[in-house]
Amino acid sequence: MPDVVSRDNIARGLKGVYIDTTETSFIDGEAGELYYRGYRIHDLAEQCTFEEVAYLLLFGKLPTKLELEEFDRNLKECRTLDPRILEVIRQVKDAHPMDVLRTAISAMSTFDTDVSAQGKEAEIRKGSRLISQSATIVAAHEQIRRGKEPVAPDPSLSHAANFLYMLHGERPQPAAVRAIDTDFILHADHGANASAFAARVTASTMADVYGAVTAAIATLKGPLHGGAAEAVKQMVEEIGEEARVGQYVEQALANGRRIMGLGHRMYRVEDPRARHMRRCARELGEQLGQPRWYRILERIATVATPRRIGIRARVQALGERLGLPKWYRILEKIVAAAAPLRASGIYPNVDFYAGAVYYLLRVPEDMFVCMFALGRMPGWIAQVFEQWEDNVLIRPLLRYTGPTGLEFLPLEERE
Amino acid sequence: MPDVVSRDNIARGLKGVYIDTTETSFIDGEAGELYYRGYRIHDLAEQCTFEEVAYLLLFGKLPTKLELEEFDRNLKECRTLDPRILEVIRQVKDAHPMDVLRTAISAMSTFDTDVSAQGKEAEIRKGSRLISQSATIVAAHEQIRRGKEPVAPDPSLSHAANFLYMLHGERPQPAAVRAIDTDFILHADHGANASAFAARVTASTMADVYGAVTAAIATLKGPLHGGAAEAVKQMVEEIGEEARVGQYVEQALANGRRIMGLGHRMYRVEDPRARHMRRCARELGEQLGQPRWYRILERIATVATPRRIGIRARVQALGERLGLPKWYRILEKIVAAAAPLRASGIYPNVDFYAGAVYYLLRVPEDMFVCMFALGRMPGWIAQVFEQWEDNVLIRPLLRYTGPTGLEFLPLEERE
Repeated sequence: MPDVVSRDNIARGLKGVYIDTTETSFIDGEAGELYYRGYRIHDLAEQCTFEEVAYLLLFGKLPTKLELEEFDRNLKECRTLDPRILEVIRQVKDAHPMDVLRTAISAMSTFDTDVSAQGKEAEIRKGSRLISQSATIVAAHEQIRRGKEPVAPDPSLSHAANFLYMLHGERPQPAAVRAIDTDFILHADHGANASAFAARVTASTMADVYGAVTAAIATLKGPLHGGAAEAVKQMVEEIGEEARVGQYVEQALANGRRIMGLGHRMYRVEDPRARHMRRCARELGEQLGQPRWYRILERIATVATPRRIGIRARVQALGERLGLPKWYRILEKIVAAAAPLRASGIYPNVDFYAGAVYYLLRVPEDMFVCMFALGRMPGWIAQVFEQWEDNVLIRPLLRYTGPTGLEFLPLEERE
Repeated sequence: MPDVVSRDNIARGLKGVYIDTTETSFIDGEAGELYYRGYRIHDLAEQCTFEEVAYLLLFGKLPTKLELEEFDRNLKECRTLDPRILEVIRQVKDAHPMDVLRTAISAMSTFDTDVSAQGKEAEIRKGSRLISQSATIVAAHEQIRRGKEPVAPDPSLSHAANFLYMLHGERPQPAAVRAIDTDFILHADHGANASAFAARVTASTMADVYGAVTAAIATLKGPLHGGAAEAVKQMVEEIGEEARVGQYVEQALANGRRIMGLGHRMYRVEDPRARHMRRCARELGEQLGQPRWYRILERIATVATPRRIGIRARVQALGERLGLPKWYRILEKIVAAAAPLRASGIYPNVDFYAGAVYYLLRVPEDMFVCMFALGRMPGWIAQVFEQWEDNVLIRPLLRYTGPTGLEFLPLEERE
């Protein structure tokens, strides 16, 4: 740890600080690999359904056919929302969809007859409710704010298919279902990201899982966490056509603007999830006869991805190895000032292509981050349960830098 | 930092880890002093109103008479809830009051016309709404679940007086107002406690302040954080009369049960807030002709507070100084096993007396932790704003201890 905190012993942002052990997911940032419960993300993205991956994260093992059937039946049984949750959604329908999701998830605890029950069975029951009903909430909100009645869930459909069905009120195409299923799988867990960490902090006081997931949703809403896919969509719309990519990237670099969806804090090579979303974006674009988006994205990736790969990462590693984080921070500032380097050395991440998939499937732009939330649900829940297995209250310190013992003047004497 | 993390470099619970600097509050655990913005808690508790302290935390200075008048006017102007918030409360009225508060605060963002606005003015406006309306939410919920209509706020009353008025529908006595005002002041901020830290984690993604406070409320609900006053009340009710205190404490020690409300993680001497709540509990009990509660509490404090003061704290300090946290953990287990030591060396904390005050003022038991939330509101908000002043995403690491590269078997082949 001495090499990751500053000299005055303050670990701002907790960068590089290990707060616990985990067995849910492993991000190998050097090799560009991601594992859930020991399984490579590539196997899971190519050969599993979201329901299987949710089971894997909650139970710690892949299900047998029988186990999956039972889990799937439970998920389907709790898809329908209590009418009072629908009424809450109606009251707040004009808010940002993440605020609506946050409020409705918070309200869910009301209608759990034994919200504080513990033990594996109760935990799985609550986790299933959260995974299942969060999708219903997002879809119902979209229908309600368009002045329609929510679409009742269809138990013959998978989680992903049923979500798309409830969102638009029409049966989705297989390619659309596969794309959303893959998207949910790829987003299902990702280490101690800020939202999962928020869920752990909340859970560490022995608050209930609904509260922990509410905190996670509140945290994911922030543009520094869940906003990438939305930003990529806006960028692609601004560019408009493939021929304008070169000019856009040049201007962005010249003006020191970031190219959205490139690079990821945790990976030094390509985000292993990107390839699967890339495939989904390409296939979906072809099947829907809308290849333009995918072509613009591929052009951006080609133009903006760099010769001067990894300079910054290498300088940082060196600075940390030598215990010179301050020295690195000065270099970081120089690098930041050198605008042309900004987009260098960084590959597309998962959200670079997710925005295209959402756009092609007519997910409203302000619901992109909700898609992230629906996918991440099993990871949040699995981490909350993991936190409770050997719980410790998460309670850091702040170093006080203000004055002490100021002379108190009564109200009348203050000027 | 090397002396506060375990040998495998994992800072579980972030105990002893400084995550940032602060200028909001300073806990001097050795001296038993607490400062808000440099002012001693004793001056503030004895000479200020909650409104003054809220101003101090939000603006960083004590207000002049004119500044306080304007701030107070703003607080009063936003006391009334949007009818849709009341409807949300009606839908979830059967939930735990903290779940209702969490849900209603989350819903508040809907009715802020510019929820994402930044800058000092917008921040103060949102902070004032949160401080003011949270009290209305708690009181309205109590009225609604008792089958009554919410009591409209009275602009002639202070924040504390108006809260009690809305809660019970009758004008409160001056001693009651002073007790609640003092209670709110004493709870207004307290370093990087778990709920304030959760608010910072959420805010660090640039999520909005409503989301950050929602996360804080979710976190405070946990019994390891906000549950002390409620537990003290239950203990006093179980004891029933002063004469039974000795027997209760002996039995608790013999059975290894904790005496609730004694000791505080941050203080090695008496919690500096306790003396003010003690005074309030005593005065209120006398004025209401109900001295029994205070007498039972004082008897518990006398019987359970110890000869073998601070043994555990001293062993811990030694272990840390020698870089032997594992050694300390072994000792900790020995100490834990030695039941009679459990209640030793620890003084009453603020919540030891807060429970008595709430009980005497007929605050329902399940709303005790809401009282804590109403008091803590300015601290959460001030810390969110402080986080944004020089924001850094809070994103720690988890050390993966599971397998990698497990062989993937298709569903049909699993057993």
